[in-house]
Amino acid sequence: MATVVTFEGKRKGPSLETLLSLCASDMALVDREIAARMRSPVALIPELANHLVGAGGKRLRPLLTVAAAQLCGLTDGDRHIKLATCVEFIHSATLLHDDVVDVSALRRGKPTANAVWGDKASVLVGDFLFTRSFELMVEVGALDILGVLSRAASTIAEGEVLQLVSQRDTSTPEATYLEVIKAKTAKLFAAAAEVGAMVAGRSGPERVALESFGMNLGIAFQLVDDALDYSGREAQLGKTVGDDFREGKITLPVILAFLRGRAAEREFWKRTIEKLDQNDGDLEQATALIERHGAIADTFERARHYGAMARDALGLFPDSPLKSAMLEAVDFAIVRAH
Amino acid sequence: MATVVTFEGKRKGPSLETLLSLCASDMALVDREIAARMRSPVALIPELANHLVGAGGKRLRPLLTVAAAQLCGLTDGDRHIKLATCVEFIHSATLLHDDVVDVSALRRGKPTANAVWGDKASVLVGDFLFTRSFELMVEVGALDILGVLSRAASTIAEGEVLQLVSQRDTSTPEATYLEVIKAKTAKLFAAAAEVGAMVAGRSGPERVALESFGMNLGIAFQLVDDALDYSGREAQLGKTVGDDFREGKITLPVILAFLRGRAAEREFWKRTIEKLDQNDGDLEQATALIERHGAIADTFERARHYGAMARDALGLFPDSPLKSAMLEAVDFAIVRAH
Repeated sequence: MATVVTFEGKRKGPSLETLLSLCASDMALVDREIAARMRSPVALIPELANHLVGAGGKRLRPLLTVAAAQLCGLTDGDRHIKLATCVEFIHSATLLHDDVVDVSALRRGKPTANAVWGDKASVLVGDFLFTRSFELMVEVGALDILGVLSRAASTIAEGEVLQLVSQRDTSTPEATYLEVIKAKTAKLFAAAAEVGAMVAGRSGPERVALESFGMNLGIAFQLVDDALDYSGREAQLGKTVGDDFREGKITLPVILAFLRGRAAEREFWKRTIEKLDQNDGDLEQATALIERHGAIADTFERARHYGAMARDALGLFPDSPLKSAMLEAVDFAIVRAH
Repeated sequence: MATVVTFEGKRKGPSLETLLSLCASDMALVDREIAARMRSPVALIPELANHLVGAGGKRLRPLLTVAAAQLCGLTDGDRHIKLATCVEFIHSATLLHDDVVDVSALRRGKPTANAVWGDKASVLVGDFLFTRSFELMVEVGALDILGVLSRAASTIAEGEVLQLVSQRDTSTPEATYLEVIKAKTAKLFAAAAEVGAMVAGRSGPERVALESFGMNLGIAFQLVDDALDYSGREAQLGKTVGDDFREGKITLPVILAFLRGRAAEREFWKRTIEKLDQNDGDLEQATALIERHGAIADTFERARHYGAMARDALGLFPDSPLKSAMLEAVDFAIVRAH
């Protein structure tokens, strides 16, 4: 856990701030492009899309595209801005559909779009963002880049279905879980970074390295997200602790606690997760079991493993403030809100 | 209303059969491609997708691509097969999402995918078909074609949202209705035919003509669909008569009956369509009002207007059995099941 920065004296520890400030001017252009591309004569579209996209998430995925392009020496043009926008739109479309599928009411502490406008609007505006993203990609006009992003989008959709069918099955193997988070989260991180290299004209080892950086960072990011759902502090997390439990979502903390638990504990998991028969105190009990079996600590341990691979993937790039900031982003993904 | 064919002695009148038989070998390849591209290690995907896509709808949209390509002289290669498959996947994805949004239980007389597997699976498998379609387009590798299809997909999504927000508003102007059906139906017909010309290397007047043929055919097709919902015979229609009424969908028959009706009739439409407060006998009452004001006859009249434009769009192509069959398809779209 390397760099320690002080940011406005608020806290010490790795943060995204350095990377965000090094990419600030490009990210401002991305913001502008996002707003421009959400426009539609159908007022509900920008209204609903802006509720989510404009809510100011971390914009981690477009940030990866911009950072990767800069790391590969790209200094001008707007193709990386457009691609970063595509990546954010694909991500936003999946979030809109996810919240419908998960019947979620809150995201980043705000009511979800489906809670405000209903499931129908969320499904259709999600479709709009998906298709608008493809339109934008086509404008960029590079078939190899289109291939990477369209494969990523298709993999995400496949991963979402895989997650749906393995939902609430406490005997899901860790390997299946890993496949799901690779497909639904890490693949887009990987594609975001990979197309940054490609648009900068680096289709050799730099492209491979950045794809690997994104993939491993994405896996680490999702592992930590899943750990925080049982251990995080709500205010920092921007989501409700226990969401995964209430939805019966199978994540690594549950898989490990189930595998390591005795018969009575397994019955508890089957009742609460498979049958979704949950009572007061069950979340606390789940958290205690997960803690007792070291499942949170080991989920973080797994995340550090992938984080280390992400860091090493950048080995072929010469040292620079940007590279340091990208390495710090890996550390941030792992220690955030913990 | 031109050609009259006898098909297996069953009935006289225009049909799709001639066109289907002229395109039979290509359409068999399209069927094979569709099956191949739905494959996924996640078993639910081909299972659910096949329920819809394999259910043997008319495959009118991919048929347009194949017919347009043949009309433009394409005789070999598999790019038009792939594009026809893309078109069918985009269409299928929107059907899956439509049925979720409309809470439909039946399609072509069979239970909808959402009725069998639930809304969540339908949303996610729809996303898969959308994204798989883009992957396939990228394989074909022509940026101008990608532009046409991605714009069409984005227009469909926009049209679906427009339909959602104008839903159940009895004062929707005919112009808005027309905009909705252009976006959600006719645009894909137009793109399907247009890319057929493009993949055959005809990007001049033939491309424009076939785009116009598809657009006008699509408008006529949807107008007739909306008329049949109040006048068709269920067995021939393959859908339940009165669906649009029960969902409070604003279609041209209702718009015309509302505009032409007296105050008491308008109150009836507001209660049944806007408030969805419907009792026994209301569908019969709605059908009677629509009939009394000549709204079905005039919806068909409008359809014939667009049908005539579709027919004329093919004027620049020399006469051939294929051209005749395409003209007959326009007639079929208008007189089917009536």
